[in-house]
Amino acid sequence: MQVTTDRDRTPFGRVDEALLAALRNAVGADHVHADAERRSDYGHDETEDLRHPPEVVVRPDTTEQIARVMRICHDHDVPVTPIGGRTGLSGGALCIHGGVGLALDRMTRIVEIDERNLQVIVEPGVITQVLQEAVAAKGLYYPPDPSSRGSCTIGGNLAENAGGPRAVKYGVTRDFVLNLQVVLPDGSVIWTGANTLKNSTGYDLTRLVVGSEGTLCVITRAVLRLVPLPQGSRLMLVPFNSATRACEAVSAVFRAGVTPSALEFMERDAIDWTLRFVDDVRVEVADAVAAHLLIEVDGNDPDAMMKDLEKVLQAIETYDPGEILFAESSAEKEALWKLRRRVAEAVKGNSIYKEEDTVVPRFELPRLLEGVKSIGAKYGFQSVCYGHAGDGNLHVNIIRGELDERTWKEELPKAIREIFTLTVSLGGTLSGEHGIGLVQRPYMDIAFNEVQLDLMRRIKQVFDPRGIMNPGKLLP
Amino acid sequence: MQVTTDRDRTPFGRVDEALLAALRNAVGADHVHADAERRSDYGHDETEDLRHPPEVVVRPDTTEQIARVMRICHDHDVPVTPIGGRTGLSGGALCIHGGVGLALDRMTRIVEIDERNLQVIVEPGVITQVLQEAVAAKGLYYPPDPSSRGSCTIGGNLAENAGGPRAVKYGVTRDFVLNLQVVLPDGSVIWTGANTLKNSTGYDLTRLVVGSEGTLCVITRAVLRLVPLPQGSRLMLVPFNSATRACEAVSAVFRAGVTPSALEFMERDAIDWTLRFVDDVRVEVADAVAAHLLIEVDGNDPDAMMKDLEKVLQAIETYDPGEILFAESSAEKEALWKLRRRVAEAVKGNSIYKEEDTVVPRFELPRLLEGVKSIGAKYGFQSVCYGHAGDGNLHVNIIRGELDERTWKEELPKAIREIFTLTVSLGGTLSGEHGIGLVQRPYMDIAFNEVQLDLMRRIKQVFDPRGIMNPGKLLP
Repeated sequence: MQVTTDRDRTPFGRVDEALLAALRNAVGADHVHADAERRSDYGHDETEDLRHPPEVVVRPDTTEQIARVMRICHDHDVPVTPIGGRTGLSGGALCIHGGVGLALDRMTRIVEIDERNLQVIVEPGVITQVLQEAVAAKGLYYPPDPSSRGSCTIGGNLAENAGGPRAVKYGVTRDFVLNLQVVLPDGSVIWTGANTLKNSTGYDLTRLVVGSEGTLCVITRAVLRLVPLPQGSRLMLVPFNSATRACEAVSAVFRAGVTPSALEFMERDAIDWTLRFVDDVRVEVADAVAAHLLIEVDGNDPDAMMKDLEKVLQAIETYDPGEILFAESSAEKEALWKLRRRVAEAVKGNSIYKEEDTVVPRFELPRLLEGVKSIGAKYGFQSVCYGHAGDGNLHVNIIRGELDERTWKEELPKAIREIFTLTVSLGGTLSGEHGIGLVQRPYMDIAFNEVQLDLMRRIKQVFDPRGIMNPGKLLP
Repeated sequence: MQVTTDRDRTPFGRVDEALLAALRNAVGADHVHADAERRSDYGHDETEDLRHPPEVVVRPDTTEQIARVMRICHDHDVPVTPIGGRTGLSGGALCIHGGVGLALDRMTRIVEIDERNLQVIVEPGVITQVLQEAVAAKGLYYPPDPSSRGSCTIGGNLAENAGGPRAVKYGVTRDFVLNLQVVLPDGSVIWTGANTLKNSTGYDLTRLVVGSEGTLCVITRAVLRLVPLPQGSRLMLVPFNSATRACEAVSAVFRAGVTPSALEFMERDAIDWTLRFVDDVRVEVADAVAAHLLIEVDGNDPDAMMKDLEKVLQAIETYDPGEILFAESSAEKEALWKLRRRVAEAVKGNSIYKEEDTVVPRFELPRLLEGVKSIGAKYGFQSVCYGHAGDGNLHVNIIRGELDERTWKEELPKAIREIFTLTVSLGGTLSGEHGIGLVQRPYMDIAFNEVQLDLMRRIKQVFDPRGIMNPGKLLP
């Protein structure tokens, strides 16, 4: 039996007065918005320049209200797309079939910081950085930190299985989730697991929901694991005259027995463009420099960190690093991190672009980078690459620049297909931390065959037999 | 629609000459065993004294052979139960519906230790300790280490999501899996993910298979993550005159900002029985001692470890520890670990018993322990408790002792139900690392309601529509 969950050919129910009245009754008239301005506000994320507004924006305040909204939409056969901080890079929150945009920006409560168990209970609309600062004030640490942490939300992080620079030592969002409260498409409310560090009790529904991009259910509450806040860190910026050599140095660091708390890669253009974009950070970059590694170690013991740093320096020596910049103060550390965190914005400010979130086993990075460049040469596009090299996660930003409309629309998909084919041939896959969403969907056949996709489609049907949860995403 | 996957009422296909001939053709006549002795050999694990032999033991050597076996059993509608090291504690490998016992003990190849990417590719029959020693020889570390690591297998560890003492710092089996090759019940062979540290590409089939106890598919190859081998450790045995105080000390350690590499709890009886069982380890235990914590910190820097140890000592001081035994040499460390690792065998050697694998948020441990004792008092049974206290994972061993047959058979399930009800009320669940298998199945309704169970049953149907994979396990 061939399974399809494609609702493109089946019309959904209409957003009509009856539906709007029911929604107003469910969450209060003040929190149901069908005006053009609000619809437009909630009609985009950070994915290229795409615009797909919902037909109505609904802003519930409680799990019970979300359950009511889901029951109504289920009855009316109307699609529901959960919307978090709108910082997504794969279009996961775009309402491509219209319907209800379920904005979670009123659900911003940090319900409990449980210092005795090193856990925190949060609502999905909590901003990641707000959570990090709240737990840091108690000496605790929530490591996942996407570059957008000042505006992205925990709900969105969970939906996309977000990562960030610290994942290399601490793990991604998935690794910090203990338990989730979710509302199923029919309005049922369940918890996916238990509030425990270990769990071998039934199928792992928790991790099935993480990374499911709002296509299975709505996350309404999360129990997250915390760790003790490390008391210090050492940070350095290492230039290389060859981007390939920089990538080669990455796996050498781990082989030296050190697990850095961040190991980031930036091509020359990435740092140059960002230095122009953030005018308050100054770094001297020699003409010959082709790429940088930003390397951080953290811990509680200054001497132990220094020893780790020495091991790192010894490991990368073979790969011809240039003059290393050590961040001496908190301010210097912040400046270097600002540089790294704002690369995406700088690239975006520079040109129309398309970002791919390739990930490979880390030793394959040099081959991935060289492959990307030679595919670029073949198709005549420029790319700027940077990312979480310690995880083998390379963000490939393909720059529109002077390319004509036809090349951009018709040739680019072929080039992207070649990049992903290379990625998969190196043991990697399409997305390390941005998700598939809308824009990576056409490439899922490169990572998965029909047997694998069929399993995923059937899992989707288990949760969402009517196909109303974020339709048109993730599955091709 | 109510979903059922219970095949108890539907007869399976028969293990007849036609099936045996097909199996011999698939894996070679030398590896198909229908004699009583072999069937008996593969008819038990370490779960109580249960015996459920397969009707035929099949010992394939390759993924392709397993695919053939599955296609044959699928066509004949005959149940297949994967069998690993037979060290399971929930009866996951027992062939309760007869059929084919799929023994993976010929698939013991460590296919590749990839030092450049800190990964290892293994077949499911590799013994956990063999893997650990093979990677340690290259300066690498595979931390999950169940007490049975000398005889359990990676395939079994994956099926049950096994943990062990080091999980508290490094994570459980689930946290070290990058990618799995599996054979589906219809004989299709797929990989569940990619060989990458991060992955946000489609639903997380990898972690759906981990912990699924052989009920969804057969794991035929695993790509596991490794970390640098820590260069040293410090180990100490801390006595307490109150078991409750010992449990209370556990969460204080983490609040002090230290993540120990092991934090184990042992009640007095556990250590006494084990000291008698392993006659080559000597530890003086004062009369008043009620429980011990075994605490380990690891790392690369001796001074940093010493500082961590000092923080631990300061944290537990409030809870009235007795005279602490520091392991000074490797031999002393090994002796203390031997004591801890062999508790289960010692308890088993002492009396018929029933082990529950309760897990709660760690601060709730004292309440769990006291609750277990008062439930014991109510029903008149003795219990010996020990386990991975840092993870909130308490193994409750209920001792048969002098209890009569009627009490053991009829009253015990009521007591266990009370223990699990307490566990769940504390935010915990039924199993931290042993799985549900056969013996915990009757209690699944305590942890999950019908909506949750129904999702799991439907997921089972997605993978195994005929219900031939390890029937009668995990789902009630």
